[in-house]
Amino acid sequence: MDEKKRRSIFNHAKEWIYEAGQHIRDVIDEPLYIDTKSNPNDLVTQMDRNTEKYFLEKIKHTYPDHRLLSEEGFGDDVQSLDGTIWIVDPIDGTMNFVHQKRNFAISIGIYHEGLGEIGLIYNVMEDVLYTAMKGEGAYKNDKKLPQLNEKLTLDESIIVVNSIWACENRKINNKKIQALIQSVRGTRSYGSAALEFAFIAEGIVDGYLTMQLSPWDLAAGVILVNEVGGVTTQANGESINLLTNTTVFSSNAVINERIKKDFIELM
Amino acid sequence: MDEKKRRSIFNHAKEWIYEAGQHIRDVIDEPLYIDTKSNPNDLVTQMDRNTEKYFLEKIKHTYPDHRLLSEEGFGDDVQSLDGTIWIVDPIDGTMNFVHQKRNFAISIGIYHEGLGEIGLIYNVMEDVLYTAMKGEGAYKNDKKLPQLNEKLTLDESIIVVNSIWACENRKINNKKIQALIQSVRGTRSYGSAALEFAFIAEGIVDGYLTMQLSPWDLAAGVILVNEVGGVTTQANGESINLLTNTTVFSSNAVINERIKKDFIELM
Repeated sequence: MDEKKRRSIFNHAKEWIYEAGQHIRDVIDEPLYIDTKSNPNDLVTQMDRNTEKYFLEKIKHTYPDHRLLSEEGFGDDVQSLDGTIWIVDPIDGTMNFVHQKRNFAISIGIYHEGLGEIGLIYNVMEDVLYTAMKGEGAYKNDKKLPQLNEKLTLDESIIVVNSIWACENRKINNKKIQALIQSVRGTRSYGSAALEFAFIAEGIVDGYLTMQLSPWDLAAGVILVNEVGGVTTQANGESINLLTNTTVFSSNAVINERIKKDFIELM
Repeated sequence: MDEKKRRSIFNHAKEWIYEAGQHIRDVIDEPLYIDTKSNPNDLVTQMDRNTEKYFLEKIKHTYPDHRLLSEEGFGDDVQSLDGTIWIVDPIDGTMNFVHQKRNFAISIGIYHEGLGEIGLIYNVMEDVLYTAMKGEGAYKNDKKLPQLNEKLTLDESIIVVNSIWACENRKINNKKIQALIQSVRGTRSYGSAALEFAFIAEGIVDGYLTMQLSPWDLAAGVILVNEVGGVTTQANGESINLLTNTTVFSSNAVINERIKKDFIELM
């Protein structure tokens, strides 16, 4: 992607994500209209929808040839990664948004011909913006993030894994996940995939394993993690497919192979 | 406890917790000296020790007849709950302090003749102070917290439970914990017991189950949770003993009995 054009797209994305976040903060205490989607715990609010429509309007007006792949379905029916695609989660961590009114993020990943060029993750209530451009490093509020700790060991790692994957399930051998949990220094679970990627990029957690993410949950995160030397793949080690739901394992590079080899066994 | 005296103690505790927190923020980016205690993941830093010594000095100077029960052992050898006792964790969530430089708290619970009179939990890096006095409600930064949601159902609850308790262990039937995890809306794990109690009091999570806490991890939290109508007991339903390590289940009252009955089975 042309450098000047990319910088211009980045600046627009940054402007819009701040504006959308400001609006959410302004109305955070107003009553919510909550629906459920695929299951009773798959929440959506009018705020998810309105925020997505805001991005749709901005993107289509400024970049009519760009496409939008987004959670609530107002974007395009994206079947290929040709051209420039914005992959947007208007509110990542909707359960946190509804129950906690914090710990959620706006996530924007911008891909050109299949390559991740720009990633932005905005922790709305804390007003913390994580950004990255391919080859230019990752930033937290304009402060460059260092490369991830190369001396990390497994037994000093903190891994984000929701306790649900330690339970019997149809996707992964939960006994091995239990062995992982018992092998690391600690586990955490924050309820927003985008923020959990951002925390890896920041080096405050060392990995994130989950059996089900959608493209908009991870599109920005993989770019951020990549820019600080981390590795993100499907749980089986294959490359992420940005057009479907997927398993994900993202981590500091030095513990990545070991965890895949010893602790991840898909069903 | 005399009301005027209690107010005076509360004001001192508040002043000191802010001062200690300010100092931690001032030096948060300086190098840490990290030791381990009971096991390689039981961390302690000079910051835990120095902060505890700070409270020891303040308390003993102002209230020479009060005793201090505290994590790093500079306080008194407390074998009974007679008189007025400050139960202090200078840094609750030391692993977060070391790895994340945030998501930790100073916790102070003040008990008089065995009754919890005053609780303070200070989220240091976010500068958020949770406080409570017995019978006077709980506060977040001086804003009164509402009573917990009386219409909460189990399947809409968010429970804090570390994934370690879903793994086979010697303390609790992990199959039943797995069933709990699969019955609620979601689980979270933040790595600071004090903050996890504060989040229950705030109503942003609905319960917290763990098999091992020390008095200083919970002394303030139980007071806060109690003031908004929540319930805290040992996992077997018995009252908390403030002089020993203990299991803990704290939650919104409306889901408390159901979870104990259906999902908690100690070994």
